Amino acid sequence: MTMKVLGYAAQSAEVPLAPFEFMRREPRPDDVVIEVMYCGVCHSDLHQARNDWGFSQYPVVPGHEVVGRVASVGSNVTKFKPGDYAGIGCMVDSCRTCHPCQEGLEQYCEEGNTQTYNGVDRHDHQPTYGGYSQAIVASQDFVLKMPDGMDLKGAAPLLCAGITTWSPLRHWNVGKGSKVAVVGLGGLGHMALKLANAMGAEVTLFTRSASKEEDARRLGAHHIVLSTDEAQMASVANQFDLIIDTVPYDHDINPYMPTLTLNGTLVYVGLLGKIEPPVSTLPLILGRRSVAGSCIGGIKETQEMLDFCGEHGIVSDIEMINMPDINEAYERMLKSDVKYRFVIDMATLKA
Amino acid sequence: MTMKVLGYAAQSAEVPLAPFEFMRREPRPDDVVIEVMYCGVCHSDLHQARNDWGFSQYPVVPGHEVVGRVASVGSNVTKFKPGDYAGIGCMVDSCRTCHPCQEGLEQYCEEGNTQTYNGVDRHDHQPTYGGYSQAIVASQDFVLKMPDGMDLKGAAPLLCAGITTWSPLRHWNVGKGSKVAVVGLGGLGHMALKLANAMGAEVTLFTRSASKEEDARRLGAHHIVLSTDEAQMASVANQFDLIIDTVPYDHDINPYMPTLTLNGTLVYVGLLGKIEPPVSTLPLILGRRSVAGSCIGGIKETQEMLDFCGEHGIVSDIEMINMPDINEAYERMLKSDVKYRFVIDMATLKA
Repeated sequence: MTMKVLGYAAQSAEVPLAPFEFMRREPRPDDVVIEVMYCGVCHSDLHQARNDWGFSQYPVVPGHEVVGRVASVGSNVTKFKPGDYAGIGCMVDSCRTCHPCQEGLEQYCEEGNTQTYNGVDRHDHQPTYGGYSQAIVASQDFVLKMPDGMDLKGAAPLLCAGITTWSPLRHWNVGKGSKVAVVGLGGLGHMALKLANAMGAEVTLFTRSASKEEDARRLGAHHIVLSTDEAQMASVANQFDLIIDTVPYDHDINPYMPTLTLNGTLVYVGLLGKIEPPVSTLPLILGRRSVAGSCIGGIKETQEMLDFCGEHGIVSDIEMINMPDINEAYERMLKSDVKYRFVIDMATLKA
Repeated sequence: MTMKVLGYAAQSAEVPLAPFEFMRREPRPDDVVIEVMYCGVCHSDLHQARNDWGFSQYPVVPGHEVVGRVASVGSNVTKFKPGDYAGIGCMVDSCRTCHPCQEGLEQYCEEGNTQTYNGVDRHDHQPTYGGYSQAIVASQDFVLKMPDGMDLKGAAPLLCAGITTWSPLRHWNVGKGSKVAVVGLGGLGHMALKLANAMGAEVTLFTRSASKEEDARRLGAHHIVLSTDEAQMASVANQFDLIIDTVPYDHDINPYMPTLTLNGTLVYVGLLGKIEPPVSTLPLILGRRSVAGSCIGGIKETQEMLDFCGEHGIVSDIEMINMPDINEAYERMLKSDVKYRFVIDMATLKA
């Protein structure tokens, strides 16, 4: 049976988000119906609401950091039962047969994964709508189990900001003895500090502002390096195994490259676009360094990340907002005025 | 005892190479004195003779693809005896204590390795002069053994062009089942085809000219893809584990990036400079792909490469020249008019 739900949508790039009623599909045998409790607010919500990337299909109901309670399950569902706490991240399906899907890296599906919102369902070809809504329906294979006792509000951003930084940390084998640096202290950056620290790495924050030091140390940074200070930058030459670059706008990575050690990698997780100013091949060639990219994470590793966070008591630093305040929250996000993630209390949706 | 030798040098960026007499140092206990028989002509010889990179110290005696016969050895030398065939590549020393040196990757020495020419000796602080000369003196630790029976003329370019392509092929674990693509069919590119093929990989050449097909197949390519043909490029999406980019001038790598598979790497071995036009982060992020660089190879892996080439009967395709013809050879190199490497017969030096 289809279900009418209330959500918040952008009806075009030019108007603010506003209440919007729409239908959720009749659950399929492998579907889980989740009553949304909390939804994190990712910068990409704003980009897609405003069509900054040019592929928005309106109405857009954003939200891909979704935590809630299982309301019902399809006949083939074995992983969840009503009452369980469950999460949905950035994707709700993939081709499931290509090489990356077979490896559990559905985010890299060669056909493209099905985005949680502003996507198109692979079966009924209907648009997908995200977590800024009362309920959401998705295949159990793309639904995460929330660890017992986890703070569900702070957990919501783990589904995007958490996994986006977790996946490269794991892929590049960060652990005890690793030296990791993080560029940018926002939603992604603050999670990178927490996770890298909990993994046992020695963690450095690159920042242009000394005022971030106290917060950075509290979040897990052992060192702060002012990227505008040439002497400080020179002092960390050949240091880092991995630099996680979370900055979502054009910025010069050339000063960071010589701070990577032999075989070190700078991995972009936030910038979609051309590397400008252009990066020099010299530090790449002279230290077998790499510039790479990483995209969220697979379902299996997302569950591992949640379980790790459960064990280590890690959640995002958040500021709770009411659903009607989403447009104001977007304006504050544009000014980086949030520490470090807004989370919507979906109980306020009907208010 | 110091030794007076004849060589060919550029006395400034503006004049052609001409005969030049200079002194080789008195051999130290760990030194090997090599009578040069053949010396390959690398594009970087031309760059440094003409100060294209801005750090040439004149006179410049180029040559870092050096093969010859051991004339004498210092008192501590155990690796060589007079009469042995020996080779010298791009470097003749390094700090020997930093992390890369300890790993046998002296090319990445954090203090900078000592270049075979246009460098400065770490002990006597005298300039280093390369293989365009009758004899050369270097520590046994930076001298290679030439495999028995190898064609020494064709072997000379292995010391730079060979190892420069071998090292990334090995580092990125190319072997049976790997798919490798090569960009550019010059001195480096033709070695990349030969080596990748001999390692068991499925090898593709990206080229802008269909006329290169016959040669490419003869050298080891299984496939030729016209990089200017969008349909051909689309047909190899998500294919390659490694792309070896040997092109030494600005070129757009964006069309190549989507042809890398999940976790694939494009590695620069020829371009020293900024990546222009700038590369997009999208194919990096959407396939966890990397752009990397690689610099020649360590002494240990250079010996492995020579031994491998000895076993597989691999040498460079060369055109022999006489020493007095070097300036004409440079002009032809500038027009890519060489298949695929000039090698100087040093017996012609006195002519």
